[in-house]
Amino acid sequence: MSKHMPPAHPFDFDALSPFDDGDKLKEECGVFGVLGVADAANFVALGLHALQHRGQEAGGIVCHHPEFGFNSAHRFGYVRDNFTNATLMQTLPGPLAIGHVRYSTAGAKGAVIRDVQPFFGEFSMGGAAIAHNGNITNAIALRRELIERGSIFQSSSDSECIIHLMARSLQKGIPERMEDALRRVEGAFSIVAMTRTKLIGVRDPLGVRPLCLGKIGDGWVLSSETCALDIIGADYVREIEPGEMVVIDEKRGVQSHFPFRRVPSRFCIFEHVYFSRPDSIIGGRSVYETRRQIGVELAREAPVDADLVCPVPDSGTPAAIGYSQESGIPYAMGIIRNQYMGRTFIEPTEQIRNMGVRLKLNVNRALIRGKRVILVDDSVVRGTTSRKIKQMILDAGAAEVHFRIASPPTAWPCFYGVDTPQREKLLAATMNEEEMREHLAVDSLKFISLDGLYRAAGEAEGRNNKCPQYCDACFSGEYPVAPSDMIEKGFQLKAAE
Amino acid sequence: MSKHMPPAHPFDFDALSPFDDGDKLKEECGVFGVLGVADAANFVALGLHALQHRGQEAGGIVCHHPEFGFNSAHRFGYVRDNFTNATLMQTLPGPLAIGHVRYSTAGAKGAVIRDVQPFFGEFSMGGAAIAHNGNITNAIALRRELIERGSIFQSSSDSECIIHLMARSLQKGIPERMEDALRRVEGAFSIVAMTRTKLIGVRDPLGVRPLCLGKIGDGWVLSSETCALDIIGADYVREIEPGEMVVIDEKRGVQSHFPFRRVPSRFCIFEHVYFSRPDSIIGGRSVYETRRQIGVELAREAPVDADLVCPVPDSGTPAAIGYSQESGIPYAMGIIRNQYMGRTFIEPTEQIRNMGVRLKLNVNRALIRGKRVILVDDSVVRGTTSRKIKQMILDAGAAEVHFRIASPPTAWPCFYGVDTPQREKLLAATMNEEEMREHLAVDSLKFISLDGLYRAAGEAEGRNNKCPQYCDACFSGEYPVAPSDMIEKGFQLKAAE
Amino acid sequence: MSKHMPPAHPFDFDALSPFDDGDKLKEECGVFGVLGVADAANFVALGLHALQHRGQEAGGIVCHHPEFGFNSAHRFGYVRDNFTNATLMQTLPGPLAIGHVRYSTAGAKGAVIRDVQPFFGEFSMGGAAIAHNGNITNAIALRRELIERGSIFQSSSDSECIIHLMARSLQKGIPERMEDALRRVEGAFSIVAMTRTKLIGVRDPLGVRPLCLGKIGDGWVLSSETCALDIIGADYVREIEPGEMVVIDEKRGVQSHFPFRRVPSRFCIFEHVYFSRPDSIIGGRSVYETRRQIGVELAREAPVDADLVCPVPDSGTPAAIGYSQESGIPYAMGIIRNQYMGRTFIEPTEQIRNMGVRLKLNVNRALIRGKRVILVDDSVVRGTTSRKIKQMILDAGAAEVHFRIASPPTAWPCFYGVDTPQREKLLAATMNEEEMREHLAVDSLKFISLDGLYRAAGEAEGRNNKCPQYCDACFSGEYPVAPSDMIEKGFQLKAAE
Amino acid sequence: MSKHMPPAHPFDFDALSPFDDGDKLKEECGVFGVLGVADAANFVALGLHALQHRGQEAGGIVCHHPEFGFNSAHRFGYVRDNFTNATLMQTLPGPLAIGHVRYSTAGAKGAVIRDVQPFFGEFSMGGAAIAHNGNITNAIALRRELIERGSIFQSSSDSECIIHLMARSLQKGIPERMEDALRRVEGAFSIVAMTRTKLIGVRDPLGVRPLCLGKIGDGWVLSSETCALDIIGADYVREIEPGEMVVIDEKRGVQSHFPFRRVPSRFCIFEHVYFSRPDSIIGGRSVYETRRQIGVELAREAPVDADLVCPVPDSGTPAAIGYSQESGIPYAMGIIRNQYMGRTFIEPTEQIRNMGVRLKLNVNRALIRGKRVILVDDSVVRGTTSRKIKQMILDAGAAEVHFRIASPPTAWPCFYGVDTPQREKLLAATMNEEEMREHLAVDSLKFISLDGLYRAAGEAEGRNNKCPQYCDACFSGEYPVAPSDMIEKGFQLKAAE
Repeated sequence: MSKHMPPAHPFDFDALSPFDDGDKLKEECGVFGVLGVADAANFVALGLHALQHRGQEAGGIVCHHPEFGFNSAHRFGYVRDNFTNATLMQTLPGPLAIGHVRYSTAGAKGAVIRDVQPFFGEFSMGGAAIAHNGNITNAIALRRELIERGSIFQSSSDSECIIHLMARSLQKGIPERMEDALRRVEGAFSIVAMTRTKLIGVRDPLGVRPLCLGKIGDGWVLSSETCALDIIGADYVREIEPGEMVVIDEKRGVQSHFPFRRVPSRFCIFEHVYFSRPDSIIGGRSVYETRRQIGVELAREAPVDADLVCPVPDSGTPAAIGYSQESGIPYAMGIIRNQYMGRTFIEPTEQIRNMGVRLKLNVNRALIRGKRVILVDDSVVRGTTSRKIKQMILDAGAAEVHFRIASPPTAWPCFYGVDTPQREKLLAATMNEEEMREHLAVDSLKFISLDGLYRAAGEAEGRNNKCPQYCDACFSGEYPVAPSDMIEKGFQLKAAE
Repeated sequence: MSKHMPPAHPFDFDALSPFDDGDKLKEECGVFGVLGVADAANFVALGLHALQHRGQEAGGIVCHHPEFGFNSAHRFGYVRDNFTNATLMQTLPGPLAIGHVRYSTAGAKGAVIRDVQPFFGEFSMGGAAIAHNGNITNAIALRRELIERGSIFQSSSDSECIIHLMARSLQKGIPERMEDALRRVEGAFSIVAMTRTKLIGVRDPLGVRPLCLGKIGDGWVLSSETCALDIIGADYVREIEPGEMVVIDEKRGVQSHFPFRRVPSRFCIFEHVYFSRPDSIIGGRSVYETRRQIGVELAREAPVDADLVCPVPDSGTPAAIGYSQESGIPYAMGIIRNQYMGRTFIEPTEQIRNMGVRLKLNVNRALIRGKRVILVDDSVVRGTTSRKIKQMILDAGAAEVHFRIASPPTAWPCFYGVDTPQREKLLAATMNEEEMREHLAVDSLKFISLDGLYRAAGEAEGRNNKCPQYCDACFSGEYPVAPSDMIEKGFQLKAAE
Repeated sequence: MSKHMPPAHPFDFDALSPFDDGDKLKEECGVFGVLGVADAANFVALGLHALQHRGQEAGGIVCHHPEFGFNSAHRFGYVRDNFTNATLMQTLPGPLAIGHVRYSTAGAKGAVIRDVQPFFGEFSMGGAAIAHNGNITNAIALRRELIERGSIFQSSSDSECIIHLMARSLQKGIPERMEDALRRVEGAFSIVAMTRTKLIGVRDPLGVRPLCLGKIGDGWVLSSETCALDIIGADYVREIEPGEMVVIDEKRGVQSHFPFRRVPSRFCIFEHVYFSRPDSIIGGRSVYETRRQIGVELAREAPVDADLVCPVPDSGTPAAIGYSQESGIPYAMGIIRNQYMGRTFIEPTEQIRNMGVRLKLNVNRALIRGKRVILVDDSVVRGTTSRKIKQMILDAGAAEVHFRIASPPTAWPCFYGVDTPQREKLLAATMNEEEMREHLAVDSLKFISLDGLYRAAGEAEGRNNKCPQYCDACFSGEYPVAPSDMIEKGFQLKAAE
Repeated sequence: MSKHMPPAHPFDFDALSPFDDGDKLKEECGVFGVLGVADAANFVALGLHALQHRGQEAGGIVCHHPEFGFNSAHRFGYVRDNFTNATLMQTLPGPLAIGHVRYSTAGAKGAVIRDVQPFFGEFSMGGAAIAHNGNITNAIALRRELIERGSIFQSSSDSECIIHLMARSLQKGIPERMEDALRRVEGAFSIVAMTRTKLIGVRDPLGVRPLCLGKIGDGWVLSSETCALDIIGADYVREIEPGEMVVIDEKRGVQSHFPFRRVPSRFCIFEHVYFSRPDSIIGGRSVYETRRQIGVELAREAPVDADLVCPVPDSGTPAAIGYSQESGIPYAMGIIRNQYMGRTFIEPTEQIRNMGVRLKLNVNRALIRGKRVILVDDSVVRGTTSRKIKQMILDAGAAEVHFRIASPPTAWPCFYGVDTPQREKLLAATMNEEEMREHLAVDSLKFISLDGLYRAAGEAEGRNNKCPQYCDACFSGEYPVAPSDMIEKGFQLKAAE
């Protein structure tokens, strides 16, 4: 879903009031599908619960039953508050189901249930549903063209283009129509789709977003991350490869195709830094271990004399452990997180509005007083939270505060399925490291280098600048797919050097 | 909305549990629109409240504001429970708004918010919304054709065809596209539509459903019935004529066109009998007065010696007054209605499920005991309620029970926007008057004649059988527009005589 | 419940927003109880639904099951929206249950669930619950005394005094404790109470409020009105007599006592005029017939030359029928009521707030135009609604408007369980008939005489001024029980003549 | 609140469906109060949010405003979902407020809003509200006595006794009445109470539960824990001492009394182990540091050769850090917690019901495979969760699993405000350490010794067995106050040795 879309439909008044400091990049979606088990929708619900970190605003499930046909439910709120209810789940029968969780663009007033995926379309040969993780970078142009030809959009989502392109394809079969549609599409997509009998998975040629295949009994699973295989007790089989389409049915099992032109893959390195869950395995690597190793690299690149290494909970924890282990400085929980924070407040009091980070974090005062503290955080986006945390630590009596950041400076927006502030709001877009240190008013501030990050992610030689192993556009400004809608709107690419 | 549509979208679990004895024909929709007043949506809300009898399941409003664009809200439930709320109404700004109330097909499990009108479409020249009262009799064929060409339907409503036809029209302007679309459409339609600046009203060439024009200050109103003009203090101007399209904007006022081939009009006579509110004026006649006059005609056609004339509340009341006045037999409230009955029960107890009519009606026992009672009702559809009421009256000690029905026997389903049971469930489809009397086990049962009904409706000479002045297909089986979808599905028209 | 109580407990924020023109006297309560049937609470729910006109704000049920003990539910809103739900009703098992519906004092912000009856108390010999219709006129004094002795009140209800007095009684049995308590209480009370095994009914010595006994199978029923016996199919046995206490258990059936000093009874005559349902039988008389007879008396006392007799719906209907029949002037529905009006609006728009009576009533314009209209209404309290209705009728083009009122001028507040405005707000407290006519600006205005009202209620000789057969304090200012709390607060009784 | 109370009031149907593995001891309450700030209730809401770990079922606030008097709100659910709402908080004005969060007894069907504190009572000299953390061990006897004297209980809470005792006190002032009442009460109590002008804090003579005093501007704060002072920016002043009552008003500030007989204090040692938040300071000690030190002691007492030290999240984390630091074995996040777990499921599917711990915890498979793992948990209650976690770890391929428990074996129930399973359900009540190891089927299982725990809590010499410095009844069976209600019900104290 891109927030830059013109509204497809007048907004409805079901808007949530997201309470969010807006100081993290947000993965926008998680996708999950199951074929060949009784009550597949129940498995999808559990899978989506395990993928909730990839999208907290809303979720949806579409399923198919030979007798009862397609059914669906789309809801705002957490999976656990909606899709655990027996009465609802009884309306979602059948051995085949797909689901989607999504994050909404911060501050959008127009959160509408029509934007919640999976999307469904009825074609002349039958129905199909798709769930999309990623972002289509030529969606505005496609939408304009489709509207001119008479398509009526029901959502403001870029993903809806895909199903309209499918509806107009001259191909007969649904998988073939999907290939047709995806060849018109630019950008990042990891898609889980279904027909009445088939479960379909596709990744864009660069393989920007993750997608993996699992097996449960005689059934099959597609999931954004492996942690969602674990929750349902499925076995991990393999990742869907960049540019691969798998079509799975109960008779023939998994059929693999590569319908797109092959290009070197560019997996999103930020999935390792922050988006994916630490208990997931990506590219054969433990995400937790990569993060811990970032801490180790950071301790080597940016050592400092101090008394304690404290994570900014919870995303900074693995890197802080690594930093402590490499540096020998004791690891400690200097900041305590309130377990009872949720995400939304309906019509909050002024005081709640002003509380910010103090509602969820508190300093462990007795521990911090008089100490030189290294704070390890995963990233600095706008810097607003970092400033508040620094202040809390100082108010508690810390002698020194040193920030160590487990990613390079985030200087460029992501156009491949991540909600990033506009470029001018990114602290690193306008300041160098020393300016940021001054801005945050800390004793020292160090980011891991791009090469250090690549090393931690398993590339012993660091980044191959000729042909980078990952998509790191948010750090480097090197976009592997031109963001054509954004360029049309005036976005300035990095000047060639 | 036709219940015979194949499902366009898997159903969502928000189904209401309609509690309904299913023994009345149900008007399926009311439409209303306002242009040229501040906060037009508030006026639409009031108008829809006054039209609530035309559709109780759900309602929707779309509005347009020069700065804030199109906005909308669609809700299940009564207008008064949704569209009176200030917080919601603030999200519906602007001087132009249209609205719709609808009744859902009895027992449909798949009530989905996507089926609630007005429908909205974004075209290359801007957005438009339409609200439709009536039914399109070739919707299945149109839908099939549109899907083959790549349209994606979001609802199961026949009315959605119109907006897809508009999206594919080669015309430039939205009114022109609507003309184009409506020329492809068969059946009954009274439509209120809007663009960013225009309010549009159209009636099908037969003028089956009502639609009238009003004036409020410098603004204009379109409404299914005049009673909704009264509630907002608008002045009645005139009816939209059969086959007329009016396009209203703030500069040029009302522009009238007749884009369809002219045919003799056939207004629905059941609007006079039951659907419309008694305080509305249709065709220059008071609906109340027509109904009272039906009672007068009935007293002449079917006199009987008795002690009391009692209406079956509330729809039988005007005819009962007329019957009493013509016969000289005292009018009395022999059946009392519980004011606190609503329409739906969520997960009702077994006992509630079995209560039926006793939840809303009670016999005035002290009045009825030992009396010969004439009960005046508006119609007999399946006869189930009539049997229960008869039994209640007898249990209370009535000496005799005589039914007088303010409409002819309902023997044929309506395909023009009324929810009718299948033909074989209509009592009059399988029984003659005497068989019905035996079935209901009453002392006498008489229906008004078709000619008597026409006389009460102002046709002094009765029905012109060559060219009937009204659509009376539900009584006569003479369908002014061939119900082509239904014929394709096997519906048998009345054999030519 | 008296609104004059000091708050017993800080109010909770569950206040409803009652939308009410405040221009009717409001009965404050209905009571109902059943013993000796399976799932008695279901029967109580139906009975309360039939008594909903006696209190729309909230309802409660307490029941007892030999194994599961006492259970209860108290809810704001209509019975039909709460106590029809199977999941809730399953929590209310057992063969014995009582219930209560209540009306809240208009505009009270502090509607709290703690004020909703029945009240429950655990005594050393077991629990008991009571539901009270009426008002205790010495509640403030009793409450003060009880608090001084250490009782803690949970509600602001006058009725709670009864259960605290019972808790402190030195008697052993619960019926005996109730007698003890009620001997301390002044005012009006029709009470339905229960212990683990007994259903108890009591009426105050004057018998101000109604209470009747019914039989259903082997079980017993107590109800405010007979219409609630009808809905569950119970047979009417008799009224509980003024000053009578009945104690019913499954073994011994109905035991009757008269624990209070006998005095001549004074049943509330306004129950006949307005409060009770027309299909109820009180004192052996049909309420409907009494009201129709009031119309007859009114036509004799106050004839006028006119074209139509129209009721102000719905409470003026029976009297209008009587007026028409006696005068020979045709009866007509000149004002149509919107069936879809409810009672509350949550956070209404400004426009809704200002709509007033037009939201629920509309004039039948085609009928009224040019006519001389007699409007029959049940009462004039503050006169605000009457003025609006008159204006609507004139706006519709009536030639003349004549008001005929089915009760004498309401000049005094009721302290026996009816919500009346303060005396100075009663139109008849400050104006005579002619002044009221001028104030309402109608062509004529006539109230039925007190004697006429008594005749219509079956007292052929009219009112016995020495010893009036009814309580008519609201008309006459003659209070059969001194309202001692109110006198302490400064209320001025009528000067002796 | 004791679950052993006879029900005071029939239960209402608002029961939540707590989803809980029942394998942790649960603190039952947190209390908080503020005097002398604008909109004190907002501060109380924030304080309760910080104390949410002490009670998640429900919360309540009572406040007082000189003009608007007492107001209150009681709600089921999290503080953040209820008391952050501006509309609700506007109904809670004034400079003085107290609040309470509570945990309900596991599985209790009868959760009723009437049981939610603070409790309010109106006395002849004015109103008072109290919030109680702890448990009254002679509540059944007191309740029986109070009911016999005519008190009516509204809740099933033991705490309600206090306010009834106050209502019956012969003292004049409310603080004096509270002293009177508390002298009759046995057990544990940390109370925050209020009158119209005073904020009152009391701790029982043993000081079992915590209570501290803070200062904010010119105002005063009472709180169960210091972490709740931090969130509102209040300064920590001191703890309320065991047996101390403080009465605070705006004029005279804090007045301290010691109304009870002095005895050596016995603070609950489990507050250090688990109940209190790690960022709180109790007895001058950081809770986090005590827990880390438990890990250090445990590493000394029960070393084992292994590859990783992993906490069972989140409560085992500080001890795991300490164990790792003392043993030199690397600390790692071997188990990942799902951030999106809440506490309740409404009508869950069968599958959800069976998921148990897998819904919230997942093993970090890539990390664990082939490793010898030390799992550090805070306690073993029934052992059910420990078994499941062990199985998850083995399923993920761990080579060895060693449990280290940061508390001694929990062999006795707590009667002082903690929800403990019945004694026979406590694993340690029926098994010794080796039997437990076999039962859990782990390679080794070691609990910290009682002396080790005391050392970690700052008692260098370990436990003083003559006069223990803490209440450790759950480990030792030595109850500092005889649980008289329980003894009456048949509870067997530990045999004297």
